[in-house]
Amino acid sequence: MKNFILQNENAIYFECKFSCDNVIFLNLNDEKYFITDARYVTEAKEYAKNCQVIESSNLIETTKEILKKNKIKKLIFDSNDFTYATYIKLSEHIKTQFIEKPNFSKQKRIIKSDKEIILLKKAAVAGRDGFKQLAKFIRKNGLNQSEQFLYFKAFEKMSQSGKLDISFEPIVAINENAAKPHALPTSKKLKLNDLILVDAGVKYKRYCSDRTCTSVVDFEKFSFKRGQNFKNDKHQKVYDIVLKAQLNAIEKARVGMKASEIDKLTRDVIERAGFGKYFIHSTGHGVGLDIHEFPNINSKSDVIIEENMVFTIEPGIYLPNEFGVRIEDTIVMQNGKAVIL
Amino acid sequence: MKNFILQNENAIYFECKFSCDNVIFLNLNDEKYFITDARYVTEAKEYAKNCQVIESSNLIETTKEILKKNKIKKLIFDSNDFTYATYIKLSEHIKTQFIEKPNFSKQKRIIKSDKEIILLKKAAVAGRDGFKQLAKFIRKNGLNQSEQFLYFKAFEKMSQSGKLDISFEPIVAINENAAKPHALPTSKKLKLNDLILVDAGVKYKRYCSDRTCTSVVDFEKFSFKRGQNFKNDKHQKVYDIVLKAQLNAIEKARVGMKASEIDKLTRDVIERAGFGKYFIHSTGHGVGLDIHEFPNINSKSDVIIEENMVFTIEPGIYLPNEFGVRIEDTIVMQNGKAVIL
Repeated sequence: MKNFILQNENAIYFECKFSCDNVIFLNLNDEKYFITDARYVTEAKEYAKNCQVIESSNLIETTKEILKKNKIKKLIFDSNDFTYATYIKLSEHIKTQFIEKPNFSKQKRIIKSDKEIILLKKAAVAGRDGFKQLAKFIRKNGLNQSEQFLYFKAFEKMSQSGKLDISFEPIVAINENAAKPHALPTSKKLKLNDLILVDAGVKYKRYCSDRTCTSVVDFEKFSFKRGQNFKNDKHQKVYDIVLKAQLNAIEKARVGMKASEIDKLTRDVIERAGFGKYFIHSTGHGVGLDIHEFPNINSKSDVIIEENMVFTIEPGIYLPNEFGVRIEDTIVMQNGKAVIL
Repeated sequence: MKNFILQNENAIYFECKFSCDNVIFLNLNDEKYFITDARYVTEAKEYAKNCQVIESSNLIETTKEILKKNKIKKLIFDSNDFTYATYIKLSEHIKTQFIEKPNFSKQKRIIKSDKEIILLKKAAVAGRDGFKQLAKFIRKNGLNQSEQFLYFKAFEKMSQSGKLDISFEPIVAINENAAKPHALPTSKKLKLNDLILVDAGVKYKRYCSDRTCTSVVDFEKFSFKRGQNFKNDKHQKVYDIVLKAQLNAIEKARVGMKASEIDKLTRDVIERAGFGKYFIHSTGHGVGLDIHEFPNINSKSDVIIEENMVFTIEPGIYLPNEFGVRIEDTIVMQNGKAVIL
């Protein structure tokens, strides 16, 4: 990789194993600079690997001085990570040419190292435990609790009461609210035989987990397991189709396929069952330091799936004003096949 | 205000009382356009005031078509709210000239309407109640709880167990961790006579509250009230200086002053007491739809303070590896003076 500049926290963490919310990172001819303010210098010096840590009260000016001193001619930047204002301040009155390369850090991170997979696995295990604890709560005390309160309990259980960061705000949606893929929690209350969708994840050492379960509400046996026995026949029918779609992709995904072929493995099942137009998003996305990474698993992607890629498989069917079903797991490609993390 | 384009959720909410996470807003010759995808169209049509709601699967292309159709020559945009990538996509192959005007929406929102002040007041009341509930928890069960767990309880109490959004992740810091203005919660446990700093806020109808309290840990009488009796003499000395600095600014702030004069009202007290170099941030910031708005209350700002401005007054003293004290309230300028919300 040539000379580049980063501002994104996770992209910087990937390079040097430390990051903070006010830093510019430069990689110049194999010399690395971690430019930050007084608040973070001590920790940066302790934790940032193979970097010169530079204290500055004006990160942009310091960056430009380093670029000038090193007579840098060309510098790659991710145009999705820099505001127009920052770009202008960085690039004016300097000879360095800024070369736009969208998502180049995400591209570097598309194949996970074995060490990263261990961390992603730990995140997945912690995430599954969060779901288990939430199911226990629902069995005991779920009746008549609002989506808002169940959202709060999902946060509690996923974060282990504040010990772990969450990957994203949990989604908790009952019946017709589950028909919105990104529903916000309301005061709607949980009743027997409702359908409930929970999408939640947690971070382990900055690596994310991501999982969605759809379940029937039964206060005696409630669980987030795959085998669900809905009282409502349409719930069951749609659930079975989504599950079949998901399992089809997990079973048949292979290294060497295009991402679009994996998308087709879920989409074909749903289309054949007559619900194609209600599967309104792509099949999945990469997961790593960011909750949304590469590869994107959609109908248009020609990306070739490789060993050690980690991504979600999450087909869904959304029937407006009725209900929605999504089943999501995060998988890793190992020995040529998909393995649930 | 001339023709402008917005992408920031709060800036758009301010214009039309609705917003979502995928929208471009155009204000062209007094015609307003809310351009969003299929997921949000129904709600936008119901709630967005005085706008044409336009459904699009490619927001940028649709925006450019509207600009072309209306032969727009100049369009103001906030260069802090648009990535370089989005700016390039918007501005290429089009005759419209994009005019950079950083923070123009925040500038428009610097003086709050009476209606906004009512909402900010409700947020402040909910925030204070959150602090009260947290204090109650600490009295009963605070002993030996970790910062991480107290952070979780702060989230619970501020959000009313998921009913309200929080303004930002609460800060809960004990003793030396309070010396870091933006400490992350650790496994450090709460003991008798510790110093604890809590900075937290909540939203009411999208408007933010913001408050910081520093307290002595006493499991019988624990509270976040101003009158604190620390067992540690240095805690007490520093606390009294910060409190004096804060009250000095609240009492003496007047409409017509420069923001820098209000900053001086806190800074002078701390400097005279010999702790000037440990007050390492500005005195305050505006609060509204965003947690950080205008006016900035710092030593360099010439902004004239006006009636109905809302901002924080939050002096602090941070003694590295020892402890830190910050006392923060959000005030509104009314009848020429500062009133705590």
